[in-house]
Amino acid sequence: MDNQVFMDLLAAREYKAVRSILNVMNAVDIAALLEDLNGADLVRAFRLIPKDDAAEVFANMSSNLQTALIELFTEEELKDMLDDMYLDDTVDMLEDLPANLVTKILTTVSASRRQQINQLLNYPEDSAGSVMTTEYVSLKKTTTVADALRLIKHIGIHKETIYTCYVLENRRLIGIVTAKDLLTEDDEKTMEELMETELITVTTHTDKEAVGKLFAKYDLLALPVLDNDGMMVGIVTVDDAIDVIEEEATEDIAKMNAIVPTEKTYLETSVFEHAKNRIVWLLILMISATFTGMILTHYENAFEAIPLLVAFIPMLMDTSGNCGSQASTLIIRGLALDQIHLRDVFRVIFKEFRVSFIVGLTLAIVNFVRIMIMYQDAVIALVVSLSLLLTIMLAKLIGSMMPLLATRLHLDPALMASPLITTIVDACSITIFFAIATAILLR
Amino acid sequence: MDNQVFMDLLAAREYKAVRSILNVMNAVDIAALLEDLNGADLVRAFRLIPKDDAAEVFANMSSNLQTALIELFTEEELKDMLDDMYLDDTVDMLEDLPANLVTKILTTVSASRRQQINQLLNYPEDSAGSVMTTEYVSLKKTTTVADALRLIKHIGIHKETIYTCYVLENRRLIGIVTAKDLLTEDDEKTMEELMETELITVTTHTDKEAVGKLFAKYDLLALPVLDNDGMMVGIVTVDDAIDVIEEEATEDIAKMNAIVPTEKTYLETSVFEHAKNRIVWLLILMISATFTGMILTHYENAFEAIPLLVAFIPMLMDTSGNCGSQASTLIIRGLALDQIHLRDVFRVIFKEFRVSFIVGLTLAIVNFVRIMIMYQDAVIALVVSLSLLLTIMLAKLIGSMMPLLATRLHLDPALMASPLITTIVDACSITIFFAIATAILLR
Repeated sequence: MDNQVFMDLLAAREYKAVRSILNVMNAVDIAALLEDLNGADLVRAFRLIPKDDAAEVFANMSSNLQTALIELFTEEELKDMLDDMYLDDTVDMLEDLPANLVTKILTTVSASRRQQINQLLNYPEDSAGSVMTTEYVSLKKTTTVADALRLIKHIGIHKETIYTCYVLENRRLIGIVTAKDLLTEDDEKTMEELMETELITVTTHTDKEAVGKLFAKYDLLALPVLDNDGMMVGIVTVDDAIDVIEEEATEDIAKMNAIVPTEKTYLETSVFEHAKNRIVWLLILMISATFTGMILTHYENAFEAIPLLVAFIPMLMDTSGNCGSQASTLIIRGLALDQIHLRDVFRVIFKEFRVSFIVGLTLAIVNFVRIMIMYQDAVIALVVSLSLLLTIMLAKLIGSMMPLLATRLHLDPALMASPLITTIVDACSITIFFAIATAILLR
Repeated sequence: MDNQVFMDLLAAREYKAVRSILNVMNAVDIAALLEDLNGADLVRAFRLIPKDDAAEVFANMSSNLQTALIELFTEEELKDMLDDMYLDDTVDMLEDLPANLVTKILTTVSASRRQQINQLLNYPEDSAGSVMTTEYVSLKKTTTVADALRLIKHIGIHKETIYTCYVLENRRLIGIVTAKDLLTEDDEKTMEELMETELITVTTHTDKEAVGKLFAKYDLLALPVLDNDGMMVGIVTVDDAIDVIEEEATEDIAKMNAIVPTEKTYLETSVFEHAKNRIVWLLILMISATFTGMILTHYENAFEAIPLLVAFIPMLMDTSGNCGSQASTLIIRGLALDQIHLRDVFRVIFKEFRVSFIVGLTLAIVNFVRIMIMYQDAVIALVVSLSLLLTIMLAKLIGSMMPLLATRLHLDPALMASPLITTIVDACSITIFFAIATAILLR
């Protein structure tokens, strides 16, 4: 859909054409299309959306657009919208709205819904509670398939997902039955006969990262959430789990590059926030790098005698940094995906030892040849290549061990990535290089 | 489940206890539990798994374990297993098995299934075709809800997902109906009345990365796959989409750290593969870094006159590298999640210009104070701090523009990450530093 065509039709008040366009479009795409509108145009376009889709379009809008619309809605319109929205979408929206609009919304919805919303808003930011919805299908163990199907027909339309039904006894989860079971089993069977009792559950305070991992590991469509007393309070659905998995990867990538992670997108984040999210680690790393500088001043006599040595500093620093960050990257990602565990520490060491020897030897030989061609100095070529080999082996060891050490200390392994590893490894590589150079060249 | 307890029970031939343990465990967990077994023990344990779960346990095993089992199975057992497995799981398994076992399996299955398997095996590695399954529920537009429910009851148990049904006309997809519709709408309604006709589809050759993005964007449970003639050939289910999303993030993280990506886990990858996956980029970057070294030799007279200058090289190189990789990381991830587009290039430049000025100024001031305290030399402090400010601003510009340039040239932006940016930015920072130092200090 070409945005401009749509704008023109809207401006020309060709409402019939606009309505037919909106009628065939997906809610997610309509939300994106309306991003460029504001004021009266926005409300006018929004009122032309088919009533069935309006709440879903609204839920998919940016918080700026939601804010604008809520201020322009009549009280009646706002109430209708909120009644049609899923509870977890409403909560997501409220978390980004200005306080006065949150109050406006909470006074508009019914008392029971207000109570549910308030409860969801109170869960810690990264917890399973914060991403769950309290709407799900609950059945008794004596319910038959026929009864369950009738119940779903009656109430199901308002439930976010009906594909997994939960069998409860005194609010306690005792089994799950899938819609597939209901659709394929005999009408007279009871939930007790059909239900799966090997349950995978989390509590409201489980970290949402763990929730994402469970979905990926067990191929779930929904995951039940229990409170601290083991009572069922809600479910996390697979669409929200996908968002969590993407967010966690984004967060790890940011941390691995010395950026304080944020849930906002690049363009949404203000200049000052960007600066703030980047400065902390840059300062820490800059101060750390001055130590490498101090090591260099310690070897001033070496490069005063042979100035050419300075020319190899960038190559040694960059290569060892890259080697260290390769190793740390693989370990950090393996830990994040539960493919590597603390108990694998010796397997990792042994593997990195062999890998780094092959890599180091290859690079050292290439480097030796390069220096011979450029400077025809076998001693310097030997000093640099030997330093390179030792540096690479040390870099891979440090790079692979630091994330495991962080895990052991209950820190986030993603912090032990490229920038920090580079800084640590730089100091080591300069020390190794000048120690060898001094020993061999300045005897 | 404590692995050792299980092993002990198995060794003691306490089959009743073993069977009851396996009976309450999830298939994914059973697969993990059996990883430590081999030979006769493995087959014995596998035969104790409840028949309903065996195929799913098998599908969740590592390819090493699958290989071992296939060689130990009787022909009858193998046939039963393959009949119970989902088609896409079978194909996933075949892709990792040695050739002789692939032949053994293809001769065991029925001719029609062999044909389906062969077709799936032929799709390009990263295509939607390679992750789809050909098992789905297809309906006619004249089918009623009651008929559809009967049909699902009859055949549904063998379909990987029945939650989205596809309405076809001459093999062409004309609409989708969800199980939710079937469960909540009146029995007499036809598919034509209920079906959603705003269809989101891909072709067999669509990149699977795009498939993952569509699931995340539109909150899908399944996505229909069409062939080049627009005929429906299969579906991708959400559990496979989650795997794709995780794999794509892993692949990007590897590329962003100069590693050739692989689908195997860290521990599964052999030492030689690890070395091979890492050496290519290390060599390219090492050669590139020697240019920075050559720039340094060009300024030999500067650091011969003032050796202290060398001490600031690591700090300048590391800081500018970190600044550049911060910027490139944010842009690469924004591009991967469709949050940044090529048309945003000027917004990005303007944003990075302002961010880099704030960051650069802050670090320059801290650095000025640090040098004044350590060396009491205002001129050197000024030279280093000024170089730092300019270097940071240039690094952020290069870091943010390179991924966009790569996108423009239809290259993968993830290659324009930390290692390459660092190498480019290093050369710039050394040049800026010594140009300023020469101009001010060696007049």
